[in-house]
Amino acid sequence: MKGHTNRFGLVAFAAVAFTAMIQPALAQDAAAASTIASADAQYIFNTLLFLIGGFLVMWMAAGFCMLECGLVRSKNASMQATKNVALFSIAGIMYWAVGYNIMYDGVDGGFIGSVTPKIIPAIDKDAGTYTVASDWFFQMVFCATTASIVSGTLAERIKLWPFLIFVIILTGFIYPIQGAWKWGGGWLASGADTSWIKDVSGGEFQDFAGSTIVHSVGGWAALVGALLLGARTGKYSPGGTITPMPGSSIPLAALGTFILWLGWFGFNGASQLAIGTISDASAVSRIFVNTNLAACGGVVVALVTTQLLYGKVDTTMVLNGALAGLVAITAEPLTPTPLAAIVIGGVGGLIVVLTVPLLDKLRIDDVVGAVPVHLFAGIWGTMAVPLTNGDANFMAQAIGIGAIGGFVIVASLIVWTLLKFTIGLRPSLEDELEGLDKAEIGIEAYPEFGTGSQRLAG
Amino acid sequence: MKGHTNRFGLVAFAAVAFTAMIQPALAQDAAAASTIASADAQYIFNTLLFLIGGFLVMWMAAGFCMLECGLVRSKNASMQATKNVALFSIAGIMYWAVGYNIMYDGVDGGFIGSVTPKIIPAIDKDAGTYTVASDWFFQMVFCATTASIVSGTLAERIKLWPFLIFVIILTGFIYPIQGAWKWGGGWLASGADTSWIKDVSGGEFQDFAGSTIVHSVGGWAALVGALLLGARTGKYSPGGTITPMPGSSIPLAALGTFILWLGWFGFNGASQLAIGTISDASAVSRIFVNTNLAACGGVVVALVTTQLLYGKVDTTMVLNGALAGLVAITAEPLTPTPLAAIVIGGVGGLIVVLTVPLLDKLRIDDVVGAVPVHLFAGIWGTMAVPLTNGDANFMAQAIGIGAIGGFVIVASLIVWTLLKFTIGLRPSLEDELEGLDKAEIGIEAYPEFGTGSQRLAG
Amino acid sequence: MKGHTNRFGLVAFAAVAFTAMIQPALAQDAAAASTIASADAQYIFNTLLFLIGGFLVMWMAAGFCMLECGLVRSKNASMQATKNVALFSIAGIMYWAVGYNIMYDGVDGGFIGSVTPKIIPAIDKDAGTYTVASDWFFQMVFCATTASIVSGTLAERIKLWPFLIFVIILTGFIYPIQGAWKWGGGWLASGADTSWIKDVSGGEFQDFAGSTIVHSVGGWAALVGALLLGARTGKYSPGGTITPMPGSSIPLAALGTFILWLGWFGFNGASQLAIGTISDASAVSRIFVNTNLAACGGVVVALVTTQLLYGKVDTTMVLNGALAGLVAITAEPLTPTPLAAIVIGGVGGLIVVLTVPLLDKLRIDDVVGAVPVHLFAGIWGTMAVPLTNGDANFMAQAIGIGAIGGFVIVASLIVWTLLKFTIGLRPSLEDELEGLDKAEIGIEAYPEFGTGSQRLAG
Repeated sequence: MKGHTNRFGLVAFAAVAFTAMIQPALAQDAAAASTIASADAQYIFNTLLFLIGGFLVMWMAAGFCMLECGLVRSKNASMQATKNVALFSIAGIMYWAVGYNIMYDGVDGGFIGSVTPKIIPAIDKDAGTYTVASDWFFQMVFCATTASIVSGTLAERIKLWPFLIFVIILTGFIYPIQGAWKWGGGWLASGADTSWIKDVSGGEFQDFAGSTIVHSVGGWAALVGALLLGARTGKYSPGGTITPMPGSSIPLAALGTFILWLGWFGFNGASQLAIGTISDASAVSRIFVNTNLAACGGVVVALVTTQLLYGKVDTTMVLNGALAGLVAITAEPLTPTPLAAIVIGGVGGLIVVLTVPLLDKLRIDDVVGAVPVHLFAGIWGTMAVPLTNGDANFMAQAIGIGAIGGFVIVASLIVWTLLKFTIGLRPSLEDELEGLDKAEIGIEAYPEFGTGSQRLAG
Repeated sequence: MKGHTNRFGLVAFAAVAFTAMIQPALAQDAAAASTIASADAQYIFNTLLFLIGGFLVMWMAAGFCMLECGLVRSKNASMQATKNVALFSIAGIMYWAVGYNIMYDGVDGGFIGSVTPKIIPAIDKDAGTYTVASDWFFQMVFCATTASIVSGTLAERIKLWPFLIFVIILTGFIYPIQGAWKWGGGWLASGADTSWIKDVSGGEFQDFAGSTIVHSVGGWAALVGALLLGARTGKYSPGGTITPMPGSSIPLAALGTFILWLGWFGFNGASQLAIGTISDASAVSRIFVNTNLAACGGVVVALVTTQLLYGKVDTTMVLNGALAGLVAITAEPLTPTPLAAIVIGGVGGLIVVLTVPLLDKLRIDDVVGAVPVHLFAGIWGTMAVPLTNGDANFMAQAIGIGAIGGFVIVASLIVWTLLKFTIGLRPSLEDELEGLDKAEIGIEAYPEFGTGSQRLAG
Repeated sequence: MKGHTNRFGLVAFAAVAFTAMIQPALAQDAAAASTIASADAQYIFNTLLFLIGGFLVMWMAAGFCMLECGLVRSKNASMQATKNVALFSIAGIMYWAVGYNIMYDGVDGGFIGSVTPKIIPAIDKDAGTYTVASDWFFQMVFCATTASIVSGTLAERIKLWPFLIFVIILTGFIYPIQGAWKWGGGWLASGADTSWIKDVSGGEFQDFAGSTIVHSVGGWAALVGALLLGARTGKYSPGGTITPMPGSSIPLAALGTFILWLGWFGFNGASQLAIGTISDASAVSRIFVNTNLAACGGVVVALVTTQLLYGKVDTTMVLNGALAGLVAITAEPLTPTPLAAIVIGGVGGLIVVLTVPLLDKLRIDDVVGAVPVHLFAGIWGTMAVPLTNGDANFMAQAIGIGAIGGFVIVASLIVWTLLKFTIGLRPSLEDELEGLDKAEIGIEAYPEFGTGSQRLAG
């Protein structure tokens, strides 16, 4: 069975099928046996999917870290690396301590589960169709992703500790509470006694892998934070001039994008939650294809539109185009045809190209473009679900987006405000201009290279 | 079953075997049941192999990106990152739009399949021994690899858009057409009515994972491009002096090499196309071992020979030695013994050390050494197949290499020539000297570091 | 089964269970069939675990490379990249040529196996519960890890070739010999005729994935090397001043840490050695959870303690805190509860924060902090096993640590001493000050950036 020819594979399959046909009596018993036998195998396949999907999404933490280290100025790169390692660690602990059970334990059509630590059994035979621990691991890395998104927008002018305190609240409470509403079987999920939603919308909110539940949540929290925090000093002059503050390393930003792209196969693919049947294996495979094509669509649209608009291709727009394509397909990576996936991702790319300058006009300083990528493309992707999935409709999607957005805005606003008026969010002007690496970390990212903090304006 | 002792594993296996022995009647039924039961499990195992192999090969796109960003000068690093993200996206779309079906749909002993988009079924039960979507995904990343190879050779003096147009043709047509000949069941494959090849050579062309079908194709396209494009300005002076133009970041180049090395386990391992039987699982495992050892061989030979030849170890040669070893083993990673794998890879490393300077003497400017690595070591690996695989012979290998090489040379020459005399391939001299990041992209790779474009000639 | 709801999965599982309940006679046969059927599937699952775990641990070689490239000064970064690629290659060849069989072939309660190359069968049906080749691959990458650890400590002042010769001995002999004692079924393993250990300690040495057998071995070899090699010139002045020599790229160091963190899921998870049963799948999943939480614990403790001790968060301590947490949990990642895993990892982080300055006080120059991370946290993790695993006790753990430590210290001392007094370990003072990239490699890591070798002392 060498090379890429599928000839022999087909022959082998035919032989098996033939054996089944000529032994009908045996095959009948065997079919039942197969059902039983595959219960164990399915359990292992599903668990393996969570473990593989989980380590791929964990790897996205490195992707965000590289993307952000590449897109901040060198005087803040150690800070950004520190934040990314720290937020992933805090998310892990908080999602164990309270997050998972808030999201999944006894939500039962309501708004919140139990505020208790997650118990991870040593051996959990018969507990479901996969191990509890693999599920926790997979859900945890989603929670961490939400925090990574916030980190990028607020870079270069937020102190370390208030940011980390926000991460504690976000990963332990804000993300899990809204996550409970749909994925935890809460009031936004089917089976819940929320007949008013069905009366109003005629259906149920659909978000396969989290365009809204993960990406827009990070996006809203980041946007509210950016509004309270204000822009980097010198970014927007009183006269209306916008000073570009180019990132310190485009290759690292490209690396981060590729890492995120790779991780997204786990993010979307393993959100099928099962790979123990032919049907599930087909679904996961199709999700891989659509996820990839959506990213491709985002890239190509960003390439072409920045060339047309600016006469040059903008690398950061191309990178964000890939990510916006990925975010857009996340709400429904299974039902679209390949062509639809390209279009959905392409519109995501277009959204980034159009809204990154818009935020600048509004003087909202989003260092890495996370709000266009994760919030705007996330809303687009969620609203696009009914285009390819007959179980979804626009009103139910809007209700989900609105409810989750409203909650995250209010909750984030409270936390950011409390932080602002207690320990404060911003470093001193002096510290900001000198760079947070020197001021807060004491370790420069590139002590031997350039003199970023002196050569480039604040 | 803790730690790395296999004691308990053996006990468990023995228990199973013992149970089978004392229950002969039951075991007979069960054996049949096992056959049936495993049809589903095999399908899932095979699909999983494609998905895992596929994401590993996708990751190679990041490897090429890092390798090339590290080996170009900093004034062209944003351009190189842009090209690598763009080419992977174009490859994905083109391989869906026409490539896959050209390569696999109805080739039937001929030269080309159908020029139609690939249909990805939602659920494809009974369609073969793995899902169609997983196969498309796996084949697509191979197609993208071919384009990545071209990118490196032509770096630093080709404009973005002509390069991307070439990628469209390469990934949509050139790669799939020649791929159809062997892997798509065309005229180079067994079963095809090509008795004249068997009459001449006594056998069939063998290329397990693409030393010729993937790597040499990229290499030929790159070589033809380099000849038409010419060298970087200042690289070869009229007097015969060769000006070194060292890469901007050896750590990124090393990272790229490690990424490629990792991805190659998917490239070669999943080219077994199945892991649903003990025999296939053994084959995939053995391929992992040989793939790794060939890379090791390439590294050690490059270490020793550059030390002997130049009195110093040359890092870029060592990195390319690893890659050449990997390319060399790709034509046949299954049949060699470990020792043979080390030798095959080692010769690959030697080829790089000897032919990189040769290209410079011929004034062919290959920025990253992709032609020695992918073309020369690819030819070596393909010709080495008969040394360990009794089904192969030198004449058939030479026919395959020659036919594919001839086609790619002619096709590439036509496309490059058309591009050269229409929109043009090279940026202006001024743009090239200033660096393509400023001229074509508008975003410098490292705006705060160094002043590469001013400090280094060329 | 869309999104992250497990509703439908439970339904499917219930259906299977229900079918089994109402068909007791059939189910009985089927249960036996399941046992037989799963023998093949188990074999494939286990093999897949080794292959996936293996490529994740292989990827750790890139993690060490990036961590070390980031933590050395730019004038030595090419050298560090070269060493990391070279040592992984040498480890691969040596572990095939002699290492594996020394460690696993015919140890039989003794001190060493056979000094012969490992035979990798083409197909190894019935050879155990996984393929021989997948096991070799998985064990090989552990061997390579040991060498990676040494590389970091001795950076910036050891010549290339003596280091590589040490790697040959370490990976071919030192690591495999001590590995044979426990994992190869030697005198430290159960079943061995070592009743005196049981008489003394009442139990058996336990080291699940190698806190001692892998990490402390690298740590001891590094420590002995550092003592013989001496510190970097200028690091410790006669007056007692310690000159900081900050690393050239914190983002690369952070990338390396994330790579290692990712790879550790393979390191610990696949050390379960099987995933073909529900029990094993549960164990692997739980190991993923504990491995992650231990790293989280290490990070959070390093964050808080460096803030309290120094008034600033120290990024390199945070990165090393993650790694120390991972090393600490490696000896027993299965039995701890999540909370215990956080504590075990947290103590690892504390150890790093406390002992990195201690080494400096002792004027032992460990460039990347590998001795605190891999040796000190490795000892802690090994001694912590009895806290959660009833099969372990402190005396047996101490005997294992002592025996392995003693052997590695003596063996390393002999090899380092022989190298020191024959070909010499250190470059000339001039070469060291100029940087090893220029002196030994001839290729600067960042030829266009900064002027590290001129601007920073030492």
